[in-house]
Amino acid sequence: MIIEIDFDSDEALYMQLRNQIIIGIATKHFNDGDSLPSVRKMADEIGINMHTVNKAYALLKSEGFLTVDRRSGAIIKVDINEEKTRQELLQALQLIVAKASCKNISRREVHRIVDSIYDSFQ
Amino acid sequence: MIIEIDFDSDEALYMQLRNQIIIGIATKHFNDGDSLPSVRKMADEIGINMHTVNKAYALLKSEGFLTVDRRSGAIIKVDINEEKTRQELLQALQLIVAKASCKNISRREVHRIVDSIYDSFQ
Repeated sequence: MIIEIDFDSDEALYMQLRNQIIIGIATKHFNDGDSLPSVRKMADEIGINMHTVNKAYALLKSEGFLTVDRRSGAIIKVDINEEKTRQELLQALQLIVAKASCKNISRREVHRIVDSIYDSFQ
Repeated sequence: MIIEIDFDSDEALYMQLRNQIIIGIATKHFNDGDSLPSVRKMADEIGINMHTVNKAYALLKSEGFLTVDRRSGAIIKVDINEEKTRQELLQALQLIVAKASCKNISRREVHRIVDSIYDSFQ
């Protein structure tokens, strides 16, 4: 999977990297047990500094997408805690659904958009 | 509608204020044509500084939730641009759905959560 960073984006570089790794897991480009490049290698490959890569890996670790170990480095390991995920999902969706509702987007349309994203991962 | 700011939250104060106003519109506590308190009054009422209120109002304006005018102040006015909203929705949902998918949450469950949020607005 090729990671591409948009240096003109308003989104922080470490968030872009973290987001692309999560989408890579959703699309099965990365699977449980896969090693990510070392911090130094990832930084070199995509042209960002090591601190930024570290920050992305640390966030992914705290969100339950990988383990980081001094010897083996960063390994994909999705921590399936469905109850916690549901809680976070509810919180993340609250404002997005509020905006949609204010702007006359029906729940059916939101479902359709959700489905189109699930479909794009397959 | 009572606006409550959580000073211990990691979320920026202006984002908290903006989010609560959007949820206030979704739940019909605020309707098109309603005036929001002036920047000074809102700042006094909730105990944050005027710059923070200004920032929240400016963001709400840029997102199409209110108009700001020197004489009449901030007035709720939802700009219904469904095509733009759909695009933004798709973008906002992409990562959230990716996370859900990685963590074994089915599209049906996401639909159910979306529905529960729509229901809570009624």
